[in-house]
Amino acid sequence: MPETLKDKAFLIQRIKEVNSLLCIGLDTAVSKLPISVHQDVLTFNKAIIDATREECIAYKPNFAFYEALGPKGWELLQHTIEYIGDQHLIIADAKRGDIGNTSAMYAKAIFDEMGCDAITVNPYMGEDCVSPFYKVGKWVIILALTSNQGSHDFQKQTLHNGSKLYQEVMQTTAAWGSANDTMYVLGATHPSEVEACRKTFPDHFFLIPGIGAQGGDLDAICEAGMNAEGGLLINASRSILYADSGVDFAKAAQKEASRMNALIRPHLQRVGLI
Amino acid sequence: MPETLKDKAFLIQRIKEVNSLLCIGLDTAVSKLPISVHQDVLTFNKAIIDATREECIAYKPNFAFYEALGPKGWELLQHTIEYIGDQHLIIADAKRGDIGNTSAMYAKAIFDEMGCDAITVNPYMGEDCVSPFYKVGKWVIILALTSNQGSHDFQKQTLHNGSKLYQEVMQTTAAWGSANDTMYVLGATHPSEVEACRKTFPDHFFLIPGIGAQGGDLDAICEAGMNAEGGLLINASRSILYADSGVDFAKAAQKEASRMNALIRPHLQRVGLI
Repeated sequence: MPETLKDKAFLIQRIKEVNSLLCIGLDTAVSKLPISVHQDVLTFNKAIIDATREECIAYKPNFAFYEALGPKGWELLQHTIEYIGDQHLIIADAKRGDIGNTSAMYAKAIFDEMGCDAITVNPYMGEDCVSPFYKVGKWVIILALTSNQGSHDFQKQTLHNGSKLYQEVMQTTAAWGSANDTMYVLGATHPSEVEACRKTFPDHFFLIPGIGAQGGDLDAICEAGMNAEGGLLINASRSILYADSGVDFAKAAQKEASRMNALIRPHLQRVGLI
Repeated sequence: MPETLKDKAFLIQRIKEVNSLLCIGLDTAVSKLPISVHQDVLTFNKAIIDATREECIAYKPNFAFYEALGPKGWELLQHTIEYIGDQHLIIADAKRGDIGNTSAMYAKAIFDEMGCDAITVNPYMGEDCVSPFYKVGKWVIILALTSNQGSHDFQKQTLHNGSKLYQEVMQTTAAWGSANDTMYVLGATHPSEVEACRKTFPDHFFLIPGIGAQGGDLDAICEAGMNAEGGLLINASRSILYADSGVDFAKAAQKEASRMNALIRPHLQRVGLI
């Protein structure tokens, strides 16, 4: 079966077709599911995916929520990923990273066993921790400046050379891959930093969490971070998944995604993509 | 069923009983198994555990090696952890860490679902990423200065205040827990840094990878890092698991562990523990 190569050209094509930069985070928590799905994670995920296929470019299953269900969680995750199919970038939000032989095993798990197209990687352990994730046709999405309060603890520390740690991470790791296989996680809660990173890294895609439940401003982040290729994957998880707790939860999810796309679309026009 | 509380007193008691500081890393790779176990990870793990129970304080399953087997890998991991029982500290070498609600899910996975006593945590995302792992009776083992070449890329960067990043990580995170629930990962490949960290952190246990396949010196690290409570969990994985590829692999593993313990024992005597 020929696999779709989900490279940068694929992303740009899909952005134009769907008129969206949206990534939907599948952080499916059993405790938050509508009563109507009877705690069935897979039924919920399939309904969300069916309702939002035409509203997003990427899906981002958050591995923690499936691991919390024990071994059966990994099966649910596998079935969810299979169900998404080959028209969306599938990002394993797994925040992995270890010494080389171990990162190679994580790469095998995420790409070969689970069939994801991309993985979020924690750069703290350096090059031999990150490099095993570079595989033909796959994306390495490196944590730079995350959306949470804790991003101030270390990521924003100033180094001896005057750079912030997250800037050093971006500068250093940029040499390990290219804008065709590397993205950076930059939180929507740091719009001015995103704007500065766009100037320094004109060609890289940024994965932007922190819109929605975490309070980031969608309009501000589009203004700050887009480039002529789109250049952003803007994630929303809870605000879409749990838009409504009734039987119409999937329709509500679609409406919330559509509402976000309506805010994104003028920016796609502004940069001349659509 | 009353669980054994695997606190610091438990560790010290076990160190005295077993005359060891050894942690055996269960990085079980199917491709490296002896022919005699017919690629059966669980058979191999059980044989290794049975042969080494009286030679170590802790077991450290490396999650990547099980995840690389897909969903069934998590079942093998769960059965392995159950088989270890309650006389050893069980460390999930999972290098997790994410925003608060996600780290809470990882904590549920590792502690509640998998029944581990400790987890290795990547501190890059800061306090709200680390704090959900603090649970009564559990250990949070924070990556400080890892054993790999990549530890030079960021961990050894000098900050504006003159500290190295790994030192800042240790100083900052020390306030989030105590020496009774927090350990630090310090690579055996950095003995002089381990010695300095022992002076700054006299009471914390350090988890020491990098002996064996990675080339760290066991004698030097005992000299540099021990305190009067032992204070170290010295990990070996490949050098023990794959000590022999024949039918006597488990006996060879036991002998290799015993050889390491013979090197550790004089240091336990030196600090007056035994």
